[in-house]
Amino acid sequence: MMKLFYAPGTCSLASHIALEEVGVPYEACRVDFSRAEQTKPDYLAVNPKGRVPALATERGTLTETPAILAFIAQSFPEARLAPLDDPFEFARLQSFLSYLCSTVHVAHAHARRGARWADDPAAHEAMKAKVPQNMADCFALVEASMFAGPFVMGGTYTIADPYLFTIAGWLEADGVDPGQFPKILDHRNRMAERPAVARVLAQVRA
Amino acid sequence: MMKLFYAPGTCSLASHIALEEVGVPYEACRVDFSRAEQTKPDYLAVNPKGRVPALATERGTLTETPAILAFIAQSFPEARLAPLDDPFEFARLQSFLSYLCSTVHVAHAHARRGARWADDPAAHEAMKAKVPQNMADCFALVEASMFAGPFVMGGTYTIADPYLFTIAGWLEADGVDPGQFPKILDHRNRMAERPAVARVLAQVRA
Repeated sequence: MMKLFYAPGTCSLASHIALEEVGVPYEACRVDFSRAEQTKPDYLAVNPKGRVPALATERGTLTETPAILAFIAQSFPEARLAPLDDPFEFARLQSFLSYLCSTVHVAHAHARRGARWADDPAAHEAMKAKVPQNMADCFALVEASMFAGPFVMGGTYTIADPYLFTIAGWLEADGVDPGQFPKILDHRNRMAERPAVARVLAQVRA
Repeated sequence: MMKLFYAPGTCSLASHIALEEVGVPYEACRVDFSRAEQTKPDYLAVNPKGRVPALATERGTLTETPAILAFIAQSFPEARLAPLDDPFEFARLQSFLSYLCSTVHVAHAHARRGARWADDPAAHEAMKAKVPQNMADCFALVEASMFAGPFVMGGTYTIADPYLFTIAGWLEADGVDPGQFPKILDHRNRMAERPAVARVLAQVRA
């Protein structure tokens, strides 16, 4: 059985939801960030990067959210979580995942993880101060030109939906009023009502 | 014919090389960063993010390096640039692309693009100061646990190779001695000798 290593409040939620949507059996293994378990040898043996998510499969362990999401979609094609037979549509989907990963998540990380990129505490404060604007700019772009509706890619639910839901869940903590982005807020509300999403949220928040 | 929008010295080099390796006809359109063309309306109509690369196809324009690279591999399967029939191996490849995009490229960007994440010039200097260590840490991880050799994924050349070549080309400018990473340096040297890579470098540097 696959094992998903996750932590509450992190981007591992996206992969967690995707697994639950597919309906495949998996074991969810919580990594306790409050005890810094992600920096300890036991977890570094799973993922040398010391991050979540990590998906342990019978063939080895995968990391990086876009890669895990596409793996889930390709491994369980009957769940129809990605346009697997159309390289252009698949690339559009992957472009969205990549933007969330390398731009939006990175913008968010500057609020609390500034020590990754500078040693000076004053620099951390300067980074934190810019997070609300950067996150608002990212979500303005998603709302205006990337979100097709009613799901991210249009009429069909894909792996992009739990990923957007995950990161949109950070807006308030990042000092952004999600009411500025009515399409994304509506999407977030509809996502929370999906049975698979509700099951994962109950597990993660337990 | 597809059009690749590129700028010298940027990550667009990876997609440029992948197109050249495939051997498909394409037009390479230079975006002049010295004139800030990427911020002007003409280019923002191509890519609202104001970044390169962008790949204009007959079905629309794609952005984000991992998405473009996978699109090239999937659109031209005869070039065998990715393990397209094995979701696990494809995910391993995508995980590598995602790490370069969201961690290594981001680490590099803090040297000159600090204004993205803070307004205070002192914070930009603090970010710049940490770039050599962060890039060295990233490449140490690639050298020790991600690079299979002789190519990134093992015996077969894939879309991960031009991407690693591109980012490894920034090491000296980021204050890192590539001699610390003999496998990556050897890969960089071998890559530069590939005819497709040499053709692209000649075009980009012209």
